[in-house]
Amino acid sequence: LSRNFKLTLAYDGYDFAEWQVQPDRPTIQGTLVSAIEHLTGEKTLPQASGRTDAGVHALRQVASVALKSPIPTASLGKALNDILPFAIRVLKVEEVPKDFHARKSARAKTYRYRIYRGEICPPWLARYVYHHPYPLDEEAMMASAGIVAGEHDFTSFAAVDPERNKDAEHNKEEDVKFSNVRTIYSSVWKRDGDELIYTVRGNGFLHHMVRNLAGTFLLIGKRSLDAPGLKRILEALNRSAAAATAPASGLFLVSVEY
Amino acid sequence: LSRNFKLTLAYDGYDFAEWQVQPDRPTIQGTLVSAIEHLTGEKTLPQASGRTDAGVHALRQVASVALKSPIPTASLGKALNDILPFAIRVLKVEEVPKDFHARKSARAKTYRYRIYRGEICPPWLARYVYHHPYPLDEEAMMASAGIVAGEHDFTSFAAVDPERNKDAEHNKEEDVKFSNVRTIYSSVWKRDGDELIYTVRGNGFLHHMVRNLAGTFLLIGKRSLDAPGLKRILEALNRSAAAATAPASGLFLVSVEY
Repeated sequence: LSRNFKLTLAYDGYDFAEWQVQPDRPTIQGTLVSAIEHLTGEKTLPQASGRTDAGVHALRQVASVALKSPIPTASLGKALNDILPFAIRVLKVEEVPKDFHARKSARAKTYRYRIYRGEICPPWLARYVYHHPYPLDEEAMMASAGIVAGEHDFTSFAAVDPERNKDAEHNKEEDVKFSNVRTIYSSVWKRDGDELIYTVRGNGFLHHMVRNLAGTFLLIGKRSLDAPGLKRILEALNRSAAAATAPASGLFLVSVEY
Repeated sequence: LSRNFKLTLAYDGYDFAEWQVQPDRPTIQGTLVSAIEHLTGEKTLPQASGRTDAGVHALRQVASVALKSPIPTASLGKALNDILPFAIRVLKVEEVPKDFHARKSARAKTYRYRIYRGEICPPWLARYVYHHPYPLDEEAMMASAGIVAGEHDFTSFAAVDPERNKDAEHNKEEDVKFSNVRTIYSSVWKRDGDELIYTVRGNGFLHHMVRNLAGTFLLIGKRSLDAPGLKRILEALNRSAAAATAPASGLFLVSVEY
């Protein structure tokens, strides 16, 4: 008889190949699999709310995993943290109903993209931001942020990688899963000290979608694109219409809602 | 004809063997030497205000170096930052008189030791703090901090490494250099959110001195030592009287005064 667990995780993705297990490369999922096997002897494959790419961080990622081990729920997090490298921390462990699935049950997610605007990036921030000290029309970026809010087909902002898109993200309704339509609840650029931060909340995100949005807003900041241009990109339903993917280091998965 | 430069540096010491050049191991000084040679073709040996150990960080370290290159002072910092790894940043470059020497000319230094008190250490803080989530009598640590202030022979807090002590630190008066007498201007423990932080400013510090002080204050926090006991350790002039050296990760060189 197994119990189903919801694990809330934080990680520094800088030294990992991505979420998903890969042969011979360190991944978040692979490191978690090893720690769980070390602790319980069980071979598992914890499912995340969505894969994160190489170098992408999580303030609060959620994973689900079924375990037969009789270890008390209250001890599981500490026991795993004693085994895991410090770059991955289990923040919380909850026993959840059998039908809870970190990806399928997720209702909304929030991502943050951090751009460091100062001339010299402090060494302790370098893995957690995209350093862009060059001129940007930040007000134009803030003013156009809301254009992507609402329900849209985000094909222009999705990696050209259809299988991965089906798998990478989710929506509660199975039929939405096979389309590139997603709903963005909020999309905001804001200054916080030396950082320019994009925060976006939606019911799901396609592969590379947040980094492609960030890259496209950066074009607006560079005045190579204006608000009507952004609308045309959105309507083009064509990945080659949008800008280059912004670097992974600036991206954080902030939270997952159920 | 060469010009003398004062470089103000920030670095993340986590991935470096220490300040000082070593064969086959990455060091801050060695990395700086390579960058300067790459930029100017000159073989130099920049001198720091004092060595920092493996894993120790600097918010503002100062180094001095003489260069024959005609590169403008205003361009030197940016040119070096383009070559250096992001873990080392040149914050400022100033042309200084020939007799300026980062170590010999220094009048005071400030160090900070950070202890993370939360139960789970966030991945992005792990290399910059000592994670100690266990009970500590923080008030006792704060109350006894001032005991080490003033002029003392700090032999009890110096690494047993006499050659290194002579070289590691300095005092303006050459004769003080060969003794273990130093003056501490301020010594304070303070809470800042989830961190317990020790800040100490003095005219010079012996090898391992700040980490040995932090380790000994931790004994007071654990109630294995009291204030009179700390005074006895200070008066013992014997390294084996004090506590174990606290981990390097929590230590930052904050600033050097001239």
